[in-house]
Amino acid sequence: MLIREAVTEDWDAVWPFFRAIVAAGETYTYPRDLDKEAGRALWMLSPPGHTVVAVGEDGTVLGTAKMNPNHMGGAAHIAGASFMVDPAHGGKGVGRALGEYVLRWARSEGYRAMQFNAVVETNTGAVALWQSLGFEIMTTLPEAFLHPEKGYVGLHIMYQRF
Amino acid sequence: MLIREAVTEDWDAVWPFFRAIVAAGETYTYPRDLDKEAGRALWMLSPPGHTVVAVGEDGTVLGTAKMNPNHMGGAAHIAGASFMVDPAHGGKGVGRALGEYVLRWARSEGYRAMQFNAVVETNTGAVALWQSLGFEIMTTLPEAFLHPEKGYVGLHIMYQRF
Repeated sequence: MLIREAVTEDWDAVWPFFRAIVAAGETYTYPRDLDKEAGRALWMLSPPGHTVVAVGEDGTVLGTAKMNPNHMGGAAHIAGASFMVDPAHGGKGVGRALGEYVLRWARSEGYRAMQFNAVVETNTGAVALWQSLGFEIMTTLPEAFLHPEKGYVGLHIMYQRF
Repeated sequence: MLIREAVTEDWDAVWPFFRAIVAAGETYTYPRDLDKEAGRALWMLSPPGHTVVAVGEDGTVLGTAKMNPNHMGGAAHIAGASFMVDPAHGGKGVGRALGEYVLRWARSEGYRAMQFNAVVETNTGAVALWQSLGFEIMTTLPEAFLHPEKGYVGLHIMYQRF
């Protein structure tokens, strides 16, 4: 697996699994009917943001991450990041590799911390992964996310300092 | 004191105290050198956002607040808001009146909660005001804000459900 900077043409490969994950409405605070162009605008970032894809040996896009300043001004030393892994390529360590990449990127860019603003508490696989990478659940906003099957559930705010 | 919707022309009255508060860099996560147009773009919102001014009997602008969805998709029922009071008109209850207005607005628009993403912990007057209006400190992100005099201080995330 290789993680490399995403280029414009990668969006066609990302979009099918990105759309499926967003349309399911279980893990992301994006409008479930987000269209391809709006998705691209949200995900394919320009500096100071950065977007990468994880690709397999044959060049298949397995997952993607975006990373960016989470705040401005006096809190601009806090980065944020978001992740999507193609469910067809789950369980292969793609999410972990992307998480490790994002943390290296943030450190190398001089950030002092990373904050995840809205981790759906029922997304337990992701929560456990971020914890294993050093993130802490700082709080859980009660009833902050309307899950399509489970109703109102909490949103974790996760954070780690470097 | 009257609270009314802000119109384009109000920005000339807001900008002097807005600029002073932002330039001081003690309470807002905005770039301290924000210029007038960038400030206007951040503050003067269109629907679904909403911006108001508090004005005195003689029409003087005493303070301002903006309010907006804090998240999208499954968390779009959480509102956010920000406040600026002209220091020349502090201690007159302007901040409290704006806070009460914003909570009424959010309820009337159908939001179920309000979240403040970044309340500087040394801004103790604001913290106490929001607590008196029903907000709870959910967590304090350590060293999340670089205060120009106090160094790295915490950022509170404050929340209340309706």
